[in-house]
Amino acid sequence: MPQKAFQDYYPDNMAYCYGCGRLNEFGLQIKSFWEGDETVCLFQPRSYHIAIPGYVYGGLIASLIDCHSTGSAAAAAYLEAGRTMDSEPAMRFLTASLHVDYLKPTPLDVLLEVRARIKEVKGRKVIVLSSLSANGILTARGEVVAVQAPEHLFQ
Amino acid sequence: MPQKAFQDYYPDNMAYCYGCGRLNEFGLQIKSFWEGDETVCLFQPRSYHIAIPGYVYGGLIASLIDCHSTGSAAAAAYLEAGRTMDSEPAMRFLTASLHVDYLKPTPLDVLLEVRARIKEVKGRKVIVLSSLSANGILTARGEVVAVQAPEHLFQ
Repeated sequence: MPQKAFQDYYPDNMAYCYGCGRLNEFGLQIKSFWEGDETVCLFQPRSYHIAIPGYVYGGLIASLIDCHSTGSAAAAAYLEAGRTMDSEPAMRFLTASLHVDYLKPTPLDVLLEVRARIKEVKGRKVIVLSSLSANGILTARGEVVAVQAPEHLFQ
Repeated sequence: MPQKAFQDYYPDNMAYCYGCGRLNEFGLQIKSFWEGDETVCLFQPRSYHIAIPGYVYGGLIASLIDCHSTGSAAAAAYLEAGRTMDSEPAMRFLTASLHVDYLKPTPLDVLLEVRARIKEVKGRKVIVLSSLSANGILTARGEVVAVQAPEHLFQ
């Protein structure tokens, strides 16, 4: 049976994020999955996601890294708690800090792959390291500190 | 006479950036200006730029900080060189690294203000510090290392 994406487990009221909400019809709707002990997200930039002609806009790269990392943080927190992602109460993560190193220009016309691994889970905080590749070439690295969102934000 | 935005000086072939290109009809088209020795950019998020209902998507905040900072880096480099922004050859900056600290949730329904100051200009590298406020309340801080783009990228 194919794996369900992390984002497909988000409750409806948490599923409108521009980057990863399945219910945001204008958004990127990224999907993240486990692959061994890493997480992976594939994304095809749209023609208008450019920085300079032929290359991907850095803000999109930051957005992919951000949302893939908060999704990965949630997945890791459920795993750490020995819970499945469809169990209640829902755990959702917000970004406390985002760091991206742009190593080289990212070509626009190929599928991008973001891979992440969990560096640390500590209480409500998860640190996620990621890399973004285009055609197998590493073009950016990310580090996200994600914090479990307080429940009142969703009520 | 009203000041022209930094981005309005970008040559046409550098004016398609999703974040700041005046010719990208799908993009954010941000505008940045000098205000004393700071630079400022105002932006009204669209209704779909949400993270969770009522709050701005972190990827948008990263994008605003990114593009406002590279624009500010260019403006600072022209100033440092004693040149006006419409002089040739054009100088355009790319992001080497982007760091954003999200201090608190940013409300969606107000005009956002990004303010930046130049920390350092060193050869082709400019470091830009920024803050993002909503209704006068600081919600995020950014640091961008911008590097002058090699000319071949635009030919």
